[in-house]
Amino acid sequence: MAYTAIPAIGEFGLIENIASIVAPTLAAVPELLTGIGDDCAVFEPSPELLQVATTDLLVEHVHFDLLTTPLKHLGKKAISVNVSDICAMNALPCYALIGLAVPPNFPISMIEELYRGMSQAAEEYGLAIAGGDTSSSHSGLMISVTMIGEVSSEMITRRNGACVGDLICVTGTIGGAAAGLKLLMREKAIMLEHLKHNESCNSNILADLQEYSEAIKQQLLPQARIDMVKYFHSKNITPSAMIDISDGLSSDLQHLCRRSSTGAMIYEERLPIHASTRQIADEFQDDTLTWALTGGEDYQLLFTIPKDEYRRIADNTALSVIGEITDAENGINLRDRYGMNIAMESIRGFDHFSA
Amino acid sequence: MAYTAIPAIGEFGLIENIASIVAPTLAAVPELLTGIGDDCAVFEPSPELLQVATTDLLVEHVHFDLLTTPLKHLGKKAISVNVSDICAMNALPCYALIGLAVPPNFPISMIEELYRGMSQAAEEYGLAIAGGDTSSSHSGLMISVTMIGEVSSEMITRRNGACVGDLICVTGTIGGAAAGLKLLMREKAIMLEHLKHNESCNSNILADLQEYSEAIKQQLLPQARIDMVKYFHSKNITPSAMIDISDGLSSDLQHLCRRSSTGAMIYEERLPIHASTRQIADEFQDDTLTWALTGGEDYQLLFTIPKDEYRRIADNTALSVIGEITDAENGINLRDRYGMNIAMESIRGFDHFSA
Repeated sequence: MAYTAIPAIGEFGLIENIASIVAPTLAAVPELLTGIGDDCAVFEPSPELLQVATTDLLVEHVHFDLLTTPLKHLGKKAISVNVSDICAMNALPCYALIGLAVPPNFPISMIEELYRGMSQAAEEYGLAIAGGDTSSSHSGLMISVTMIGEVSSEMITRRNGACVGDLICVTGTIGGAAAGLKLLMREKAIMLEHLKHNESCNSNILADLQEYSEAIKQQLLPQARIDMVKYFHSKNITPSAMIDISDGLSSDLQHLCRRSSTGAMIYEERLPIHASTRQIADEFQDDTLTWALTGGEDYQLLFTIPKDEYRRIADNTALSVIGEITDAENGINLRDRYGMNIAMESIRGFDHFSA
Repeated sequence: MAYTAIPAIGEFGLIENIASIVAPTLAAVPELLTGIGDDCAVFEPSPELLQVATTDLLVEHVHFDLLTTPLKHLGKKAISVNVSDICAMNALPCYALIGLAVPPNFPISMIEELYRGMSQAAEEYGLAIAGGDTSSSHSGLMISVTMIGEVSSEMITRRNGACVGDLICVTGTIGGAAAGLKLLMREKAIMLEHLKHNESCNSNILADLQEYSEAIKQQLLPQARIDMVKYFHSKNITPSAMIDISDGLSSDLQHLCRRSSTGAMIYEERLPIHASTRQIADEFQDDTLTWALTGGEDYQLLFTIPKDEYRRIADNTALSVIGEITDAENGINLRDRYGMNIAMESIRGFDHFSA
């Protein structure tokens, strides 16, 4: 058998291969309505009620760096990223299971701090931490969170329901988490440089970053938009399609369009970018647009609604209409501020296995 | 804050600390009937129907060694150990979510082999692989499996229902998985010795071990006792308490008794040990009884039933009655073949963080 490493097909190629291998298992369980390919699996425990389920891994040195991430924040983030997947189905979270692999010399007080963060976040979102598994690890810390949520069958929102003419909307602002990450990486480099030369330095990397607190908070303490799901439920609005922005707007919009068999046109001028994000990008002489499209980890909701539903959300200032669903043959494009169309495919989001 | 590492309190001490930190999250979700402390969490999505959920981590160099474990077997085992937890609640599995952290240079064909094993096992047990998460890893392979099952509210079996006088039963045989592990470790040592001296050796470690195939199969390819759960359901038998044997009979019996606030008396002569396990123990000049009590990974079911239910299971040759539930004040004891009582507490099962 020829050797092919994962980067050759990428994370999404790997997921496609896996989905085809496990496809035969679905036949035995008709209550499983959706398998691999959406933000959550969808299961029907009883008529009328649907259950959604998601799992996320957080791996040290891949997803987080303990030098720049307080453990309590990490615990909160581990919960939030899963709540975000549940919200992307227009569902509310019920309970979570936590798997933890931890180096044996790790202090107990730090593990407890991690769980305090998870527990606080769980209380804020109204979900229970119901169980888990602990194991030792020969390398770094590894956190696995699985979360189960519920939604009625009329309100569930998948990635595949967008129709030509639907408006494309996004909650909050995007690109801020990428800005926060850039700042933390810069501070870490400075700190390591000090340590290398045996110079004293402030061991609390966050202390000097007060002025950037908004961007850093978006990186370290993202909030899942459970408030938006509750808003949809209260107004009886069901988006036609929805996904959460974890890999970056560009990548996640492409997932949504591919599953809905549509194209899309997004307008640069309409992208909601926080002023502080623009300011940080200027400071780094970097491009805000790239951060907004490919930065990822914003955990905002990207959704579509029919045009005639627009008036029902028009007064919600947490929402921005950023474009429109088009025919698939038109492709997925960004119209930039000069009126040029840029193919989204050329703008890549995060891939764990990209070279 | 004083530094305390995990080995100082052990895996079960750590779990207790975690359980008390997350306890406040349970209040918001009354449908969650059981949190940390049993084989599965128990959730009530609708009246009459209960859902059980469990998660397990398999970490390279901790739970498995790729030198002695074919990836397809590893995939099957990852599914089986979770099905075993579901079975321990007298429930049947519905669907699983898989988290996978994998070094970037890992060949795709090996990942596919892993998923083929998981998929085959899922088909055998009749459950769907519904979703998951893939990530890169900077060290070894890490597999996280979460599984959801169902059972009616009359048939659910927790750890805490054992009563004084109940018979203690175990399915199949115990100690075989420990024997298999000893054999594999010996073969690995021989292989590494050959490699060290640049001598040729058979790279397929399993080829020379035909005569030990039963024990090795129990280590590499444990079968969850879903057949026993189906047997209980068909006979309308509900054990008073149940747990699966993953840490070892001694440790798991102590978990069951502690949750039921009872003691227990186990009889050495009644422990079901396969003849090949005794033979391998002799060969290693090791003690079969220790393997049977503390080896772990047998994935048999340990359960209790009222004495007057015995006649209903008496004809099942896959079951052994090994002892009786006693008052808590009598402690948890083994009566050995010489009639001596040994306190189970002095016989320790597996702890991930023991020194």
